[in-house]
Amino acid sequence: MKKEKVFIPAWMEESPPANSYRSIFKWGAPGEFKHPNKRLFTYMKEIFGLGDEFFLEKKETGLEKVDFKKTSGLKKNQTDALSKIVGEANIHTDPYNRLRAAYGKTMIDLMRLRKKQLENLPDAVLYPRDKKDIKKIIEYCNTQKIPVYIFGGRSSVTRGTESVKGGVSLDMSVHMNRVLEINETNQTVTVEPGIFGPALEDMLNNARKERNASRNYTCGHFPQSFEFSTVGGWIAALGSGQGSTYYGDMKDLVVCQEYVTPIGEFVTKDYPAAAIGPNMNDIVSGAEGILGVMVSATIKIFRYMPENRRGFSFIFPDFDVAIAAVREISQGEFGLPSVLRLSDPEETDIALKLYGVEGTILDKYISLRGYKAGNRCLVIGHTEGEKGLSCHVKKMIRKIGKKYRGLYTTSYVVKKWEEGRYRDPYMREDLQDYGIIIDTLETSVKWDNLKEVHEKVRSVVKSRPQTVCMVHGSHFYPQGTNLYFIFIGKMDSISEYKNFHKKIIDAIDKSGGSLSHHHGVGKMLAPWYRKNMGEIQFGAIKAIKNYFDPKGIMNPGGTFGLDEEKSKK
Amino acid sequence: MKKEKVFIPAWMEESPPANSYRSIFKWGAPGEFKHPNKRLFTYMKEIFGLGDEFFLEKKETGLEKVDFKKTSGLKKNQTDALSKIVGEANIHTDPYNRLRAAYGKTMIDLMRLRKKQLENLPDAVLYPRDKKDIKKIIEYCNTQKIPVYIFGGRSSVTRGTESVKGGVSLDMSVHMNRVLEINETNQTVTVEPGIFGPALEDMLNNARKERNASRNYTCGHFPQSFEFSTVGGWIAALGSGQGSTYYGDMKDLVVCQEYVTPIGEFVTKDYPAAAIGPNMNDIVSGAEGILGVMVSATIKIFRYMPENRRGFSFIFPDFDVAIAAVREISQGEFGLPSVLRLSDPEETDIALKLYGVEGTILDKYISLRGYKAGNRCLVIGHTEGEKGLSCHVKKMIRKIGKKYRGLYTTSYVVKKWEEGRYRDPYMREDLQDYGIIIDTLETSVKWDNLKEVHEKVRSVVKSRPQTVCMVHGSHFYPQGTNLYFIFIGKMDSISEYKNFHKKIIDAIDKSGGSLSHHHGVGKMLAPWYRKNMGEIQFGAIKAIKNYFDPKGIMNPGGTFGLDEEKSKK
Repeated sequence: MKKEKVFIPAWMEESPPANSYRSIFKWGAPGEFKHPNKRLFTYMKEIFGLGDEFFLEKKETGLEKVDFKKTSGLKKNQTDALSKIVGEANIHTDPYNRLRAAYGKTMIDLMRLRKKQLENLPDAVLYPRDKKDIKKIIEYCNTQKIPVYIFGGRSSVTRGTESVKGGVSLDMSVHMNRVLEINETNQTVTVEPGIFGPALEDMLNNARKERNASRNYTCGHFPQSFEFSTVGGWIAALGSGQGSTYYGDMKDLVVCQEYVTPIGEFVTKDYPAAAIGPNMNDIVSGAEGILGVMVSATIKIFRYMPENRRGFSFIFPDFDVAIAAVREISQGEFGLPSVLRLSDPEETDIALKLYGVEGTILDKYISLRGYKAGNRCLVIGHTEGEKGLSCHVKKMIRKIGKKYRGLYTTSYVVKKWEEGRYRDPYMREDLQDYGIIIDTLETSVKWDNLKEVHEKVRSVVKSRPQTVCMVHGSHFYPQGTNLYFIFIGKMDSISEYKNFHKKIIDAIDKSGGSLSHHHGVGKMLAPWYRKNMGEIQFGAIKAIKNYFDPKGIMNPGGTFGLDEEKSKK
Repeated sequence: MKKEKVFIPAWMEESPPANSYRSIFKWGAPGEFKHPNKRLFTYMKEIFGLGDEFFLEKKETGLEKVDFKKTSGLKKNQTDALSKIVGEANIHTDPYNRLRAAYGKTMIDLMRLRKKQLENLPDAVLYPRDKKDIKKIIEYCNTQKIPVYIFGGRSSVTRGTESVKGGVSLDMSVHMNRVLEINETNQTVTVEPGIFGPALEDMLNNARKERNASRNYTCGHFPQSFEFSTVGGWIAALGSGQGSTYYGDMKDLVVCQEYVTPIGEFVTKDYPAAAIGPNMNDIVSGAEGILGVMVSATIKIFRYMPENRRGFSFIFPDFDVAIAAVREISQGEFGLPSVLRLSDPEETDIALKLYGVEGTILDKYISLRGYKAGNRCLVIGHTEGEKGLSCHVKKMIRKIGKKYRGLYTTSYVVKKWEEGRYRDPYMREDLQDYGIIIDTLETSVKWDNLKEVHEKVRSVVKSRPQTVCMVHGSHFYPQGTNLYFIFIGKMDSISEYKNFHKKIIDAIDKSGGSLSHHHGVGKMLAPWYRKNMGEIQFGAIKAIKNYFDPKGIMNPGGTFGLDEEKSKK
């Protein structure tokens, strides 16, 4: 058989130019890329009815240098005072730094940057050096009523750090990224909030060598943004790692936190548990910068035992039976897997392309056994922990897989997933260069409304012609899971995008899913927050906010809709 | 060998007379008793230097009928209005009902009742029938500024429900004790807060028969007060069951809660997890009645698999090595036992008497192997869950036991513990009839301050002559455990007791333990709360309180020290 010469678009392969828009919105490391593979590319063309010629010319690539005239709203004496606090080298008022600080990594950020719609910039970006700097900054900004925003990895997908009211934005990742203490007895590590995932994990993985520890550890928290997000952000937005089913969500992992707020500083209690009234550590977790600045956090660590990890994957005949199987895994009380992912039929088909299963012997085997595309569902995962536990959990999962007519498809598929676990977001730029967007929204569901939320939200996404909707559950609990909606479509108008996006969030909200499972609320979901919470509970959050930040300087301008007179969408 | 005739005191064996003081303070069921066994009795006599003759005459037994003249502070029109809301049969202003509602089961309650020191009584006790009643009561009391207290099982050991400011006390256990829904899909049960442990657990254990469920369940929450405490109390005071190491504390078990507060009603979200700002379910957990009235709660349930339970027990050579072993168990990531109890040397010696090990072949074996009284430490426990997991956890625990030179003492000891798990508190009345008190205080510790808290608190208890101090850890986490201090002494003066009690709490507070691990704060520990939390965090709790209850009608008079001008001890 003669191999046809396949067209491959000229995916961008150079690091974005220094100080360019692209250098702000590009995912990940400047020189790292992952392009859609042939099968995925072919699929996109089919779905969107596009020929190769569509992929000849890129548009709105953001290669231009950031250069705009928006004067800082700070007065000279204010800039001087702040400069005196952090030192001249740690205050930045140039366009590039201000733009970089305001934008995160959600689609509306990317679209605005590509189209050079610049808004909601801080007047200055500060690189605080330590808690002392933070105290002085907050004291000064509170006196002067200067808004304060905080960021770490700039990977927010909810417009969390957008500086709607100007003011200053604190980049915690430049200096405040230190490991303060590793406590082997308590199995905790205390860090400054600006530390990135890999810096923390590398230190823990090499604790024997680097810290003279008795063993090596892991933080157990591996969100897709792991490489480009910080501990502070994980806690502030209540993130979940890909192994959360075993390790717990960030909410479970954070032991205590230290804050500097406009009314003073405090550290929450670090007891493993206590019955001493409403738990302050829980109250400040997920506060998204509205109460004050986190200056340190103590989080749990775990024994590093990668040698015990076991992979598994199954194809189930349909979504219902796959749900039944993962529910049985989640409620079976034999121990929990770390990674567990259930893909719906549409995602399963694409995943088999993405993971390179399509066209292999494995694929033929799956089809031969009667697991039909359009119905079949992929479930993949890892087990971890002590060796005996890890093996036992895998054994039980295989037993359940069999009981629910799952075809065991070896650990090959999960290995392929693992290879791409942090790299898939790189494909976003490639496709958007040609006007195709990939965006996500996620929600938490109980087992008994999973199907309803899936159907209702999916039907809204699919009501748009030529739109892909991949859905998976990736964080499992005895009481339910999350649903992660990925939608792909040819779209380059911001207003079209906004309307479509709003409809999907409406559908999540109305069908009974949570506004967010692990991305936080930010300013993006805030317009739904007040009504979703109800006036009484909304008022409680507002009372806490007003207590810690009476002048409203912390992350103002729509976070949780707290400083809006009425909830607006 | 001729058996000597052993003197046994005439322990009380009759149910307390109707409407007597004793009927209020006696632990548990009126006709149930557990008396100190011969070995324990002999030990008490030795420790306190008492002869048999001391145990000939009881004093302050509280057999008298409750009868006092304290007129209700409510006006006639107020009583009429409340009577109209709940119906005549559900409002009580007689002395007995008022006294019964005010007092819990801590030593100061027992002492005051025996000495007929009556204070802090509600003006009326109401038996609300449903949420509608609660709404009307709260609305009326808020308008009239009538204080509202809430109780269920009357087993508070922190003066949690004491009606310091008079007003009304709501007995939730009379009518509001229903199971509202068992949701097998989500593995949750929704109940009214006044349901007692056994009513809930019996229903769950027999769900197939009684509810046509697909299987039987357990609530997984078994505090020592299980038989005489309610779900509402468990959540309000953040209780922990004896199997919490596996099942989780009440804080982990409660999925969502419904409240009626002075400013309105709300239900917290029932998602299994969500990233939507400070978690309201956490904020209201442990609020001890200061925010409003809980009218329903949804809690997790688990598969009922008692057939998989495995017991174990070890004697370790000393406290240090026993601590190392239980820490290894807690951090080993092979799964967690449900029950795990580590007794310090003094408790170990008494436990071996109490569990009937002393004098048996097992005892001789222990001594022969060189595990010396005064040093040796008992560790007992259960494993649970799916059979393979339960067996694996037990296997690993045995392995760790061996590694740390633990002598495996079979499951006999844990069986004896299990027999007494709910019955030991019955002995309190027996001893107090002769002026010997048994009281407890508990705290949570991190692994790295366990020893310091143990030593410092214990030394305060032991500084009092002829005082027993038994200590155990009974709730384990990778990051630490709790310490449960039991102290026994001859003492019948309230002022002496108060001074001694205060010194112990001071020692807990100063040595770095939490004010409480699973009993709550109540009005008893409140004088320490403000300073312990620090002004900033104390103010946050106060802000939440003031938001929900602006007129301060909910559990006023010292709870968390919120309505005291300054913290007093």
